[in-house]
Amino acid sequence: MGLDHAATKPHEQLARHLDSKMAAVNTLIRERMASRHAPRIPEVTAHLVEAGGKRLRPMLTLATADMCGYGGAFDVHLAATVEFIHTATLLHDDVVDESQQRRGRPTANLLWDNKSSVLVGDYLFARAFQLMVEPGNLRVLDILSNAAAVIAEGEVLQLSAARDLKTDESIYLQVVRGKTAALFSAATEVGGVIADAPEAQIKALFDYGDALGIAFQIVDDLLDYQGDSNATGKNVGDDFRERKLTLPVIKAVAASDETERAFWTRTIEKGRQEDGDLEHALDLLTKHGALEATRQDALSWAAKAKSAMEALPDHAVRGMLTDLADYVVARVN
Amino acid sequence: MGLDHAATKPHEQLARHLDSKMAAVNTLIRERMASRHAPRIPEVTAHLVEAGGKRLRPMLTLATADMCGYGGAFDVHLAATVEFIHTATLLHDDVVDESQQRRGRPTANLLWDNKSSVLVGDYLFARAFQLMVEPGNLRVLDILSNAAAVIAEGEVLQLSAARDLKTDESIYLQVVRGKTAALFSAATEVGGVIADAPEAQIKALFDYGDALGIAFQIVDDLLDYQGDSNATGKNVGDDFRERKLTLPVIKAVAASDETERAFWTRTIEKGRQEDGDLEHALDLLTKHGALEATRQDALSWAAKAKSAMEALPDHAVRGMLTDLADYVVARVN
Repeated sequence: MGLDHAATKPHEQLARHLDSKMAAVNTLIRERMASRHAPRIPEVTAHLVEAGGKRLRPMLTLATADMCGYGGAFDVHLAATVEFIHTATLLHDDVVDESQQRRGRPTANLLWDNKSSVLVGDYLFARAFQLMVEPGNLRVLDILSNAAAVIAEGEVLQLSAARDLKTDESIYLQVVRGKTAALFSAATEVGGVIADAPEAQIKALFDYGDALGIAFQIVDDLLDYQGDSNATGKNVGDDFRERKLTLPVIKAVAASDETERAFWTRTIEKGRQEDGDLEHALDLLTKHGALEATRQDALSWAAKAKSAMEALPDHAVRGMLTDLADYVVARVN
Repeated sequence: MGLDHAATKPHEQLARHLDSKMAAVNTLIRERMASRHAPRIPEVTAHLVEAGGKRLRPMLTLATADMCGYGGAFDVHLAATVEFIHTATLLHDDVVDESQQRRGRPTANLLWDNKSSVLVGDYLFARAFQLMVEPGNLRVLDILSNAAAVIAEGEVLQLSAARDLKTDESIYLQVVRGKTAALFSAATEVGGVIADAPEAQIKALFDYGDALGIAFQIVDDLLDYQGDSNATGKNVGDDFRERKLTLPVIKAVAASDETERAFWTRTIEKGRQEDGDLEHALDLLTKHGALEATRQDALSWAAKAKSAMEALPDHAVRGMLTDLADYVVARVN
């Protein structure tokens, strides 16, 4: 079902199933991104929050809380928290990467300035922490504050690792856990915690979010080399041009001979790129089977996500989350 | 006593009184600024944390907890939290202001880059939130997460207010509460909360920190126009050159005639500054008594801080905090 693109997509099924809760999340987000004193804040935030992202992360919190039988209202606070953390990191990422576009629109740092992006990001982090305090659940606070630290640590690690050929698959995985999977796994874990689910289920929810996030990021990195730019909204080779070492290149570097290694050193480490370099890079990725091996890794993480779901109770949402894991890798399958 | 500069300064008395607790705070800070994966983090943090600031804010938390009879160990966590929030905001401020120097040393954004300052700042915010969760006190979490939001909101407000002649004293006060007083008042309030002090005392601790922080910032802004650059480490007129509207100028603008207003519009709003403008600005500040009126405001906030202390129990620390309020304004007295 997850692979049947004619049918409703799993994130759309989730959105429909969680309809009224998601409406409450959106209301809460709009309420809390307001500022009595600084009108710049809701302007910048609205630009990003209302740009039509899929709201995947807050949906994961609502879905897991629902699946574990939560009957209260604080899942909405936690879902909004997760979206605020996500939005804050996007604002800061775009400053750090000097990005011009996100989701097909000019970035906030371009429309306003870097200063606004940094400070409004800080404001959203603070609002996230205010929101997560409200349920009064210390374990939830522990999970989400740890996730925030892992996210920031992963981003800092990426600064030094991205252009360093010594970066291997285990460092890549740490970066990916930081930049993507930590918020996915926190989003799913807190859903179980707020619902007071049994420990084995909470552990499985963490594992699901972790594996889903990793699969998601690997697919993203793979599509950068073999995607259809109409479908992805990204140009093939963006990561190469920005000298970002991702899994396909890490695999090709590991298999490289001396000449090939000199090529990667020149183009990624030293950034001296010439016409034809991207084509040569793609040839090397194909020669060493790096794209196929990366695809297999993504599938394997998706399989881990699905198998984690087996520990969860039989529930409509469980099927949707299982399908979601397939859907995330369907773009490269 | 606070005005007797030959004697030990009040913050030095506090440091001596809180000696072993401050040592524990410094150990905890060093422990928590570490990162297993990203060595850039402790490098950047150490540059700032060990640059020899007075640690005034964490000292306020230890002092108020002590004064209210706290016997536990979590005051150390909260003091470290406050210092981490402070350090994170300094890192981001220096990016936003494009500063080159802080405390007489090159800033982190200059030594490393803006990216590192943004992301390491985020990491320290996250570490601050982890630390503040550990005492397991929800009211403390509420106070500190609110302070973080007020700080960021004040910084964003300053972006638009700083170069706008419509900024009046009430907007200035909001900015100052955000950029300075919110962390002072949170630092003093959580000291009382963790000690389970009576509500009237907690309220007085908040008022003390709020008034002390406002006095501190007004003095800083005043010294920018009349300070001795040897003593302050700042050059006279930095705020004017950076087109930052602070209290002295706000008072002069409010009293200005048409010609004078045109001068402020040109120099602050439009930023078209010429030789001799700073001297003319200083003449206008003197003509309208703006410097003296600003000085009186600082004294009045210091007096409020001291009067708040009267609600606290008789204790060695109380005298030091009272002296501290005098000391903060002694530079302009």
